Amino acid sequence: MSKPSKDSDAAHDKRLAGLVHADPKARFNLAKVDPGHKPFSVGDKAQDKAVVEELAQELDGLQNLFWADRRFKLLVVVQGMDACGKDGTLRHVFGRMTPLGVHAVSWRAPSEEERSHDFLWRIHQRAPAAGEIVLFNRSHYEDVLVPVVKRQLTGKQIAQRYAQINDFERMLTEHGTVILKYMLHISRDEQRLRLQDRLDDPAKHWKFLPEDLEVRKHWDAYQDAYADALSATGTPWAPWTVVPADSKTHRNLMIATLVARALKALNLRFPEGDPALRDVRVE
Amino acid sequence: MSKPSKDSDAAHDKRLAGLVHADPKARFNLAKVDPGHKPFSVGDKAQDKAVVEELAQELDGLQNLFWADRRFKLLVVVQGMDACGKDGTLRHVFGRMTPLGVHAVSWRAPSEEERSHDFLWRIHQRAPAAGEIVLFNRSHYEDVLVPVVKRQLTGKQIAQRYAQINDFERMLTEHGTVILKYMLHISRDEQRLRLQDRLDDPAKHWKFLPEDLEVRKHWDAYQDAYADALSATGTPWAPWTVVPADSKTHRNLMIATLVARALKALNLRFPEGDPALRDVRVE
Repeated sequence: MSKPSKDSDAAHDKRLAGLVHADPKARFNLAKVDPGHKPFSVGDKAQDKAVVEELAQELDGLQNLFWADRRFKLLVVVQGMDACGKDGTLRHVFGRMTPLGVHAVSWRAPSEEERSHDFLWRIHQRAPAAGEIVLFNRSHYEDVLVPVVKRQLTGKQIAQRYAQINDFERMLTEHGTVILKYMLHISRDEQRLRLQDRLDDPAKHWKFLPEDLEVRKHWDAYQDAYADALSATGTPWAPWTVVPADSKTHRNLMIATLVARALKALNLRFPEGDPALRDVRVE
Repeated sequence: MSKPSKDSDAAHDKRLAGLVHADPKARFNLAKVDPGHKPFSVGDKAQDKAVVEELAQELDGLQNLFWADRRFKLLVVVQGMDACGKDGTLRHVFGRMTPLGVHAVSWRAPSEEERSHDFLWRIHQRAPAAGEIVLFNRSHYEDVLVPVVKRQLTGKQIAQRYAQINDFERMLTEHGTVILKYMLHISRDEQRLRLQDRLDDPAKHWKFLPEDLEVRKHWDAYQDAYADALSATGTPWAPWTVVPADSKTHRNLMIATLVARALKALNLRFPEGDPALRDVRVE
């Protein structure tokens, strides 16, 4: 199989079949996505890993160009159940970029001050500026997942939040922001293995939160809430992509491929030099 | 020569001779530091580069531990003349860490709102939280360099700012912040070559700012301002280290070595697991 980042558009679309949702009027069937599927794989695990590393290097160069070009802003949203691999994705896909070029935000439960504003208030403050790449580890989507599962919002309030998110994201894209939204989709069984590993490995134990077990009890309710949120907020300007993520390598490969393609589609360029500077000699 | 990060303390101190200033009552003689000196070199350029890469990988692991440990905060300040290699340092030394673990701030001229506060107001907001590593590309030291060269402050006002910086930094360290301050020291000739390169290379042209030529005209005044600032703000709690930086590889090697040593000196550890979780099986 050839490297997915070099696919023709048709081959690319084939790999993505059933994984992209861009129509808030249609229903997205999350349950039909197999978390163990590997549509972006190019061969065995070692080959896939080699392509991830190659793409991560390429993304470093693209970031430099993105920053120099300064016409766009990039917001990458990574969502998913506990232990789905959000941290690992950001490390492996964006971990070769210079720290100056990429800003990651790990969203936690809102503070008292944040709760006293609308739920997009704190999000807006961390949106990328021209030339910036901002990575959201969790996001405003937590605000249409947690309160939904906990039944803290009425149906009308939930629908209102979906519409507010769509309006907010459209506004950002109208101002030059490219929004890439990835839902890392793991199976209930894979989560069990990963949480157990956090408990058993002394070097990972600190990542284990007892409340993760509590959330896990509501697995089905969260899957439903994700399906609803993805359906309602996958838009033409900010579509959702579901990433089969039981394989960490496949997850990294798929996202690195898609981010690189998205950046290359912008036809980034170094700005023209000022002609007045052409013959300047530094004394 | 052996790898500098494995030096005995005595060998380490020898490499640092004349480059560290930690006594605000003494005068630091910046002019005596040779920007072409390579005290941390282990051999030829290729060997030095290999050690930088090795140390960058090691720093990635140390960052993970630093975050897990959560007892400390790390602030790295990088200062120096235009084209001294601030961006390159942050890329090569910290570029292997996950974007989740390290936050870089590039300080520019203050906004109108920022100017209407004291000069430490905006700085304080970006200070690292527990477990965080924050990199300052330029810093509050610009506020005791630019206005000094432009003669916008009286001697008394400048002395007051030095003291305010020392008090502020001491307060941060008293709350668990480790502050590492590096002044990248290049020669006037090396700056000329690098600025000319930015003018001549279309892929670097966007980095060139005409005002850099203006600042360059005041080279000696800036060297004096640096010598004054370093002298007055090199403290036992937040010493300055001057990094001979005409060689990019040496600059990276020296800083990577020093940051790794500083982190290792903290005896970082993974937090003890909660004994109540010891026998938990994830269902």
